[in-house]
Amino acid sequence: MGEFELIARFFDRPLPSGSGVALGVGDDCALIEPTPGQRLAVSSDMLVEGRHFLSTVDPAALGHKALAVNLSDLAACGARPRAFTLALSLPRPDEAWLGALATGLHALGERHRCPLVGGDTTAGPLNLCITVLGEVPPGQALLRSAAQPGDDLWVSGTLGGARLALEVFRGRVPAAAVDFDSARRAMEWPEPRVALGLALRGVAHAAIDVSDGALGDLGHILRASRLDAEVWADALPAHPALATRPLDERRRLMLAGGDDYELLFTAPPSRRDAVLAAAACSHTPVHRIGRLHPCPQGVQPGPARVLDAQGRGLAGPFASFDHFKAEPAADA
Amino acid sequence: MGEFELIARFFDRPLPSGSGVALGVGDDCALIEPTPGQRLAVSSDMLVEGRHFLSTVDPAALGHKALAVNLSDLAACGARPRAFTLALSLPRPDEAWLGALATGLHALGERHRCPLVGGDTTAGPLNLCITVLGEVPPGQALLRSAAQPGDDLWVSGTLGGARLALEVFRGRVPAAAVDFDSARRAMEWPEPRVALGLALRGVAHAAIDVSDGALGDLGHILRASRLDAEVWADALPAHPALATRPLDERRRLMLAGGDDYELLFTAPPSRRDAVLAAAACSHTPVHRIGRLHPCPQGVQPGPARVLDAQGRGLAGPFASFDHFKAEPAADA
Repeated sequence: MGEFELIARFFDRPLPSGSGVALGVGDDCALIEPTPGQRLAVSSDMLVEGRHFLSTVDPAALGHKALAVNLSDLAACGARPRAFTLALSLPRPDEAWLGALATGLHALGERHRCPLVGGDTTAGPLNLCITVLGEVPPGQALLRSAAQPGDDLWVSGTLGGARLALEVFRGRVPAAAVDFDSARRAMEWPEPRVALGLALRGVAHAAIDVSDGALGDLGHILRASRLDAEVWADALPAHPALATRPLDERRRLMLAGGDDYELLFTAPPSRRDAVLAAAACSHTPVHRIGRLHPCPQGVQPGPARVLDAQGRGLAGPFASFDHFKAEPAADA
Repeated sequence: MGEFELIARFFDRPLPSGSGVALGVGDDCALIEPTPGQRLAVSSDMLVEGRHFLSTVDPAALGHKALAVNLSDLAACGARPRAFTLALSLPRPDEAWLGALATGLHALGERHRCPLVGGDTTAGPLNLCITVLGEVPPGQALLRSAAQPGDDLWVSGTLGGARLALEVFRGRVPAAAVDFDSARRAMEWPEPRVALGLALRGVAHAAIDVSDGALGDLGHILRASRLDAEVWADALPAHPALATRPLDERRRLMLAGGDDYELLFTAPPSRRDAVLAAAACSHTPVHRIGRLHPCPQGVQPGPARVLDAQGRGLAGPFASFDHFKAEPAADA
């Protein structure tokens, strides 16, 4: 199977009607009709074998996740998905593997009306790079820099499941089969919070998706908005698979785990009802987990303070994931 | 140096005024203002070490080429560059190497008013994936499917230089130092024909950029437009470094070499003056190298026939590059 047959068989699909895609896979460029008056949102994410996924991963899950992490970036901006490109480097064209990858990819794309419109295929170490395009009205994007002092801090869904699965895969912690299965699902089939992101336009101030660890990702909001924050450890929504873990481990998994693809966002206390309405209409649970404070003049916005239910500060480390630094604590 | 410091140091640059980029590097998404009434053109290309470039490549040249091959796709559609994203997987963050890569990348982006607006950085085998965004008025994109019977076939610049350099690097053919230097420049610093692509709007019918080999890339136009073609071997513009090669080798390098990033395009004979005017105003040499013919009903559009100056057919093979098939003949 050659490169062009591979593209035709697995990646060239009829475009859904009303997609606004004037030209899809198969020319030098894809052509898309922007919706008048909208801003274009664009994000790229690269997934590398052994780094972002294990070589044994179900290829359907890999296809799903590669697109999901990109849609999650659109969600964090409150942007509506329009289309995506896939650049794929793979050691050899295995038909069953590619068929499953394409199935996972197209299924998630169809659910979000976000078709594959182009890309590239090459031989090489396994690597998937997706670029996703979305739209958002001017002034309505949820930016990291838009948080305000006094804002509530919220998070969608639950935290820590994906990281627990990774730790079990690495043989670092044991887990009951039922917990491992549900944690593994969180790791391999994350659900991008697109509907919540759209519903939070005009309600939330700032947002980010939790990819490297909740506390580290919150740090990006704090630095961009020049604010401090407190996070209430006992208000954090734990993934069900974490229910039987020791308290300290559970907190680390939730605060520093990463790969959650939940939305972490801020909104003024006056909009609590609107946040809950956005959560309800998008069928996405949300939890209020902290508060933002002014950052004293001349002080660098630091990591958020983590407090227990009695308001006592908890010592970390809750290190976030950094691709070029040592891995987070192995005992997380 | 961590992931975020790396991005800040090498990839986050002030946006040029009037870029229409509302938000660049550093949030979940970049935000771009589309020009009203334009179609969005999008293309992704992935470059893998050992496949698309040698590990010893000058990183400035690599940065240049990674963006150049993407801009070349925009050129082939007649689209004007707007912005690009870079996803980069690299084994370790080497500051000198990254600095040079960024220099090559930003310099070409600046010349085309096409800023880096976002992307991703991760550890892994060296791999660069660029997605470029451009704009073209509705109905004016140059499509592979728009060639007409009777069209002239044209090509910009010269062919074969990049492939000659590759063959010398591989130790398969010798070359004088002066020829190798100039061929190597063609391979490492290709100049995307953006200005020519823009000037050919409304003049050319179909276009493609020569990445896998002129004859193979022409095949994409023929299949998409359901046409046949003749190519005049003696009218092909050879890269100067090919001047002393044997005739047969020179033809193979030009027809099957690949990595040229010239524009191969078709236009009606009535528009020859307009083609030459487009070439002149974009300061890009062009050569007329063949003609398109109707494809008999029921016959699959095949590879173009290659004719010598006496109209005699030349036997191939002039195999094009395919990432999942055997490499083109080593004696090319």
